[in-house]
Amino acid sequence: MKLTILFGGASFEHEISIVSAITLKAKLQNFDLSFIFCDQDHSFYSIDTSKMKATTFSKGEHKKMPRLSISNGAFLEKKMFSTVEHKGTVLNLIHGADGEDGTIASLLDFFSIKYIGPRVNASVFSYDKKYTKWLCEAKKIKSVAYEMFCSNEHKNIDMSYPVIVKPASLGSSIGVSIVKDESELDYALDVAYEYDKSILVEPFIEDVKEYNLAGYMANGKIVYSIVEEPQKEEFLDFEKKYMDFSRSEQVLKADISEELELKLRNTFDKVYKNMFEGALIRCDFFVVNGEVLLNEINPIPGSMANYLFEDFEGGLEALASSLPHGKRASVNYEYIHSISSAKGK
Amino acid sequence: MKLTILFGGASFEHEISIVSAITLKAKLQNFDLSFIFCDQDHSFYSIDTSKMKATTFSKGEHKKMPRLSISNGAFLEKKMFSTVEHKGTVLNLIHGADGEDGTIASLLDFFSIKYIGPRVNASVFSYDKKYTKWLCEAKKIKSVAYEMFCSNEHKNIDMSYPVIVKPASLGSSIGVSIVKDESELDYALDVAYEYDKSILVEPFIEDVKEYNLAGYMANGKIVYSIVEEPQKEEFLDFEKKYMDFSRSEQVLKADISEELELKLRNTFDKVYKNMFEGALIRCDFFVVNGEVLLNEINPIPGSMANYLFEDFEGGLEALASSLPHGKRASVNYEYIHSISSAKGK
Repeated sequence: MKLTILFGGASFEHEISIVSAITLKAKLQNFDLSFIFCDQDHSFYSIDTSKMKATTFSKGEHKKMPRLSISNGAFLEKKMFSTVEHKGTVLNLIHGADGEDGTIASLLDFFSIKYIGPRVNASVFSYDKKYTKWLCEAKKIKSVAYEMFCSNEHKNIDMSYPVIVKPASLGSSIGVSIVKDESELDYALDVAYEYDKSILVEPFIEDVKEYNLAGYMANGKIVYSIVEEPQKEEFLDFEKKYMDFSRSEQVLKADISEELELKLRNTFDKVYKNMFEGALIRCDFFVVNGEVLLNEINPIPGSMANYLFEDFEGGLEALASSLPHGKRASVNYEYIHSISSAKGK
Repeated sequence: MKLTILFGGASFEHEISIVSAITLKAKLQNFDLSFIFCDQDHSFYSIDTSKMKATTFSKGEHKKMPRLSISNGAFLEKKMFSTVEHKGTVLNLIHGADGEDGTIASLLDFFSIKYIGPRVNASVFSYDKKYTKWLCEAKKIKSVAYEMFCSNEHKNIDMSYPVIVKPASLGSSIGVSIVKDESELDYALDVAYEYDKSILVEPFIEDVKEYNLAGYMANGKIVYSIVEEPQKEEFLDFEKKYMDFSRSEQVLKADISEELELKLRNTFDKVYKNMFEGALIRCDFFVVNGEVLLNEINPIPGSMANYLFEDFEGGLEALASSLPHGKRASVNYEYIHSISSAKGK
C-alpha cells in the first residue's frame, strides 16, 4: 500500500513526531512509504526515505530537500520545468498542536487530501482535556473528577492532595506535575501555565490500575487492539515518554477478566462512535473499584500504538479503505438567478 | 482601515455569503476594502471591488479574475514576472460549511493570517447544534429541550407536538420544518437528512418571545449591540432569510426591561468568554416565563449583524486590533541532541 507519513509540526511534541515517523518506517516495511515533514515555520518538505533519521532534522538538513506546497488534491513540488504531484492517502502523524488540534485535519479536508487521523470535531474534543470532560458528560462516560484553572483567575482547589496538575491541551506528560501538598501547588501551576492558559487539576489516585486500548473503525466495525497494562511508574516524564514513542515490539496482553475487557471495549465504543471515524486512537483508562474511568484520548498515539496490534499493516490498510468523506455542498445560484430575473437584470 | 473580506465557500450558504459581502461593501464605506472569493471547488479569486455584485458569481465571471493561492502570511497572486502578496487582516464572512465549521479558521491560523471570526474550537461548538447543547450543559446555560436523531438509527420522539426539526449543522433555516403532528414527522426528517446526518428535534414553542443580541470582545471588554426583537413569522424560510442577509438599516431597540437586557447580556457573556474571542457573534435567545434560553449561536452572522450596532465601523476596527494570537511552540531539538550525543553520533 502507498502511504504518505506527515510529521513534525509547530508543536511541543515536534521531536516525538519525528521519533514516531522513524519508528513507523521500520514497522511498515511492506508499504510503499513517502514522508512529508512540516517544519516549525509551517513549510513542507519531501524527505527522502533514506534520510529518515533524527539528525536530519536536528541539523537542519531537511532544508536542502524539496519544498512542497499544498494544493487541491495533492502536495506540489515545483521543479525547473514541471510540477510533481505528491498524491495519495496521508497518515497524519503530527502529535500535539497542529496535528491533534484540528488544524491539519481542516487543511487536508479543505484541499481534499484523504487522510488517516482525527477529523476536526474529534480533534477539538480530544486535544483540550476540558472538552474531553464535556464529551464524557454528554455521552455518559465516567472520568476522573476535575477542576479547571485559567491563567486569568485565582482560586483554591476543592479536592484533597495529592493532585495531578496538567496543561489542558498537551500530551506526552509535558508540563504535568504530581502535587503532594499545598506548598507545591503554585510551582506546579506555573510550570503548567508555561504550556497552556487552561489547567486541569485532578485527584492523583495512588496505585490506580491503568489500561490502554487502541482501535479504529474499518468496514463499519470497530477493531480493537489488545489491552495493555502500561509500565507502572509514578508517571512517565517527557524523556521516558519520548523513548516510549519509538516502541515497536509487540507487547503482552494484560492479565484481566473477559468482563473487564468487555467493559473497556464498551467504553471505547462510546468514545469512538460518531466522532473518531477515520482515526486510529488509543484510550487510556483507569479502573477504580471495578469501574472504568476514561483518563485520556490519544487521537494520534505515539507510533500509532503499533505494538498493540497483531496485524498492524493489515489494520492500517483496512482503515485507509474506510475513510469518511464529507459531502461538499453544490452551488447552483438558484436564489441569485431568481432574484436577478425578478429584478429584470 | 484595510480589511479583506473572504466570502463564498463550498456551502449551502454560499449565495447568502455573497449577499452578505455585497451588503458590507455598502456598509463599510470608510474602509479600504478588498475581496477574496472562495469558489465551491476551493479556488480563491481576487475580486475587483467594482465587480462586487451577485451576477458576477452566478454568471461565473469571477473565473476570469486573478486566482490566488494561500501561503505563509498572505494570499499570493502570480503575475507574469512577479508575485503580488495580498496581506492584511481578513474578515471571515463564509457562512455555513467551511467558514463556520472550523476549516477556514484552521487554514488562516496555519498560514498565520490574522482574521476576524470564530477560532476552531468556537466553530465546532457553534456549527453543530448538538455541540452547542453540550456547551450549554457544561457552562450552565439554559437552552431548549432536545432530542438527537442519526440517519443510522430509528426511534420515536418523546416530546409532544408541535416540534421543530433541524439539521444539526446548518444555519439560515435550511432544511428546517415545523411538524404539527406525527403524520408529518417522517417527511420533515427526510428533508433535514438531505442536509445532515444528525438531526435535532425540539419542542416548537408557540408565541415564544425571541430576542437577538450581538457582541464582540475588544480591549478585554465585551461590547454589546442593541437587543432586537426579530420580525415575527412562523419562521423565516430560506428566501426570506436570504433577503435578511442583506439588511443594512439600523433597527429599533426592543422594548424590554433593563432587568431582561441584563439577563440577556449575562447569558451572552457565558457563551462568549474563553471561546469566541476574535469573533463578532449574534446569539438568538428565547424568553419563556422570564427565563432566558439560548436558541442558537451565529458565529458569523448575516452581514455581521451590522444593523444592530450604532458604530459598526468603529466596532470592527476595535475588534481587529484585539485579535487573539496563538503562541507557536518553538523547537530546539534538545531531546534529539541529547540522545544523539549519548549514542556518540
